[in-house]
Amino acid sequence: MTGNDKLVAELHRALPDGAVTHDEAVLEAYRYDRAAFCPAGQPAALVRVRSTEDVAAALRIASAHRVPVVPQGARTGLSGGANALDGCLLLNTEQMNQILHIDVDEQLARVEPGVINAELAAAVRKHGLYYPPDPGSMDISTIGGNVATGAGGMCCVKYGTTADFVRGLTVVLADGRIMRCGRRTAKGVAGYDLARLFVGSEGTLGIATEITLALRPAPPAPLTAVAFFRTPVMACHAVAGFLGAGYRPSVLEFMDGPTIASVSALTDLGFPDDTGAMLIAQSDSTAPADELAAFERAARECGAIEVIVAEDPAEGELLMQARRLVGVAAERLGTNLVDDVCVPRGKLAELIEGIEQIAAEHDVLITCAGHAGDGNMHPSVVFDQHDPRQVTAAQRAFEAIMVLGLELGGTITGEHGVGELKRDWLARELDEPARWAHQQLKRAFDPHGILNPGRVLVPEVRAP
Amino acid sequence: MTGNDKLVAELHRALPDGAVTHDEAVLEAYRYDRAAFCPAGQPAALVRVRSTEDVAAALRIASAHRVPVVPQGARTGLSGGANALDGCLLLNTEQMNQILHIDVDEQLARVEPGVINAELAAAVRKHGLYYPPDPGSMDISTIGGNVATGAGGMCCVKYGTTADFVRGLTVVLADGRIMRCGRRTAKGVAGYDLARLFVGSEGTLGIATEITLALRPAPPAPLTAVAFFRTPVMACHAVAGFLGAGYRPSVLEFMDGPTIASVSALTDLGFPDDTGAMLIAQSDSTAPADELAAFERAARECGAIEVIVAEDPAEGELLMQARRLVGVAAERLGTNLVDDVCVPRGKLAELIEGIEQIAAEHDVLITCAGHAGDGNMHPSVVFDQHDPRQVTAAQRAFEAIMVLGLELGGTITGEHGVGELKRDWLARELDEPARWAHQQLKRAFDPHGILNPGRVLVPEVRAP
Repeated sequence: MTGNDKLVAELHRALPDGAVTHDEAVLEAYRYDRAAFCPAGQPAALVRVRSTEDVAAALRIASAHRVPVVPQGARTGLSGGANALDGCLLLNTEQMNQILHIDVDEQLARVEPGVINAELAAAVRKHGLYYPPDPGSMDISTIGGNVATGAGGMCCVKYGTTADFVRGLTVVLADGRIMRCGRRTAKGVAGYDLARLFVGSEGTLGIATEITLALRPAPPAPLTAVAFFRTPVMACHAVAGFLGAGYRPSVLEFMDGPTIASVSALTDLGFPDDTGAMLIAQSDSTAPADELAAFERAARECGAIEVIVAEDPAEGELLMQARRLVGVAAERLGTNLVDDVCVPRGKLAELIEGIEQIAAEHDVLITCAGHAGDGNMHPSVVFDQHDPRQVTAAQRAFEAIMVLGLELGGTITGEHGVGELKRDWLARELDEPARWAHQQLKRAFDPHGILNPGRVLVPEVRAP
Repeated sequence: MTGNDKLVAELHRALPDGAVTHDEAVLEAYRYDRAAFCPAGQPAALVRVRSTEDVAAALRIASAHRVPVVPQGARTGLSGGANALDGCLLLNTEQMNQILHIDVDEQLARVEPGVINAELAAAVRKHGLYYPPDPGSMDISTIGGNVATGAGGMCCVKYGTTADFVRGLTVVLADGRIMRCGRRTAKGVAGYDLARLFVGSEGTLGIATEITLALRPAPPAPLTAVAFFRTPVMACHAVAGFLGAGYRPSVLEFMDGPTIASVSALTDLGFPDDTGAMLIAQSDSTAPADELAAFERAARECGAIEVIVAEDPAEGELLMQARRLVGVAAERLGTNLVDDVCVPRGKLAELIEGIEQIAAEHDVLITCAGHAGDGNMHPSVVFDQHDPRQVTAAQRAFEAIMVLGLELGGTITGEHGVGELKRDWLARELDEPARWAHQQLKRAFDPHGILNPGRVLVPEVRAP
């Protein structure tokens, strides 16, 4: 028996029937997440866990065999963090998909990691509650994956990211021990904030198997407005003016000219000609008309060509279509390499202008849309993956965008995570002591380096 | 020369004139924070740092000599976390008291740790901005101390705690290296959330020397209402009804009968007779009258004796006096041992009833007030410190309250921190893997155990 056979045999013994597979075709289907350019290795086996105990058993065995473990949710990530590694155990949590409890009085939900984001959001809505984090992938991505990456979305400008809603976690540690951290109470400072440390750690420190999330009372249905501008810079000034006046919209999104053109090519939305940029704002406050009137004022002061305020939520949903179609529209143009830089809001205009220059310099198409209220843009480099020249140009443009983001005082990733795609860039963003602190944390929680090694951090060479 | 003399001589050489003192009288004045029952040791020296470089120099020397370092702000903490240890270096940051920058466009403030909370709040107000965290000590406590303990306050029910406002930190590590972590952007998931890990770590992992805080647009001046009830249970039901209806008050405070009596003994506030509990609510929303009308409805449905809604902010301030006088009023009654348990909101009535029983069983006076909207209560055990029987009874009652809080699914500390006072209790709140995780984090960042040893965690015996 090879080491690999022994591993698989032990997994079969320890886990329920049907949980472990090493069928080549099945493994092939689970090798990749949605990151372009990220290599994927050949896994030794796939474990589809159904309980915390399954995860603990799998990690005990993997730890004993020193086999790398790659945790996966729905593999919708954009950074290669869930791609297989050679000889790894793929530990997939999709089947742990139960909403365990919705506590209406405490405004909490306790869920398994495989619950789909939108399904949780819909379930709590029935109780008059609201789970705000709304990544673009919300219809297909899991809460476990959202926690692993610290996912964001359009709501963040008002409500914050996934991290702001994680109250407590059950985590399986590298050696299979089961740890509870965080709390069920609104506040708590008993010890280090372990739960927060695991959020965004991308499966490199432990695997969350139960997640307690804070909910909010459901706000009123939002009203929506859009504003069209000749240039991105005008739109950015409107963002600054609107937010600077003290408003807290529930959505404040940006789309540049190439993005609008790509969406318009898909479906005619009747947008004005000469549009170089648009903003979409929503208000779910108790006085949404006032808030959107302030948005309209700010937009007109910055030279908006046209501002449309929806009469009702249904009309607003139509306007939101434009934003929701961005991904599909960009995919029609070619392969997409989606970046995720976030800069101080006051640097947004410089970022967008710089991206236009990068597109010109590298002779690639870049569509740029994103969360203007947070300074978090998703420039998408569009290329033909069968043309080596374009592939190289796209990679260079993608990297140039990160350089620009860092130069503007920003970060290489606002909400997608580091994964494998950006681990060298993380090392560039952090100073030397912070890189040391990251390695110390990794060593502290994963002494044998089996948890998603080479993701987030460049792997260390360590004694076995 | 003794080891101590060498230490002091090195500190004198490395730090600016006047920064280092080992004058007995001065040291005596800096030995204690505000925790009752916590022992304080004899420090070797006091360093009053004025810069990040001063802190780095002090930690390099302390690290080389393996001398424990106790970081201090204004020493207003209630858990003994800033009390001296024998032979320690007291590292006081009060003189690092500059507001370095208020960035109106990005809604950020960058401050030194010694800035007084209320001074920062006032400074940002002038720019139409708001720094919500408002611990009871806000007029005298420092932002550095607030960060070290993860301080809360009355605002938390709507706005969250200090942790929710810390965007970035400059931290000096145990060996004197200077690390930057966190970000200047609204979002960011580049690597582990180091900044969050340091918040609430009570000086045991590193010392923050520069703090970037998120601000919000200043809300309208709040309106205030109070409601009086015959029993605490009726008040707790009103809290559940009001918040359950989806309202987000900016303050929702509770005071029990003994607390009201202590305040009324100080000044006649004209409260109704037979009052066994009161609630104070504020709304700073755009429709405060509507929100307070909902509060009044909820209170009356739960049998309120009387509800008063202030006509204007000035009248509201008068009503808030009752809450602000709680500390002073309790001190008039004797020595106070202030607890800080936080329970799920639905368990608040059980907590308060349990505290009444504990007071009866141990034959001590306990006044109970706190942040009802968060389930975070501050029962204050009042005793005569010169009567050994009362001292013992007070300690037992204090511990019984924590046992009760844990039994109700709560935490031993909602916002005051663990310090030395509750380190054994933290070990009880955490499960074995979480205790291990805490020790791993401590070892990772402070391998020689010089940073506030014995605070938060029971000290380990380690090889030198």
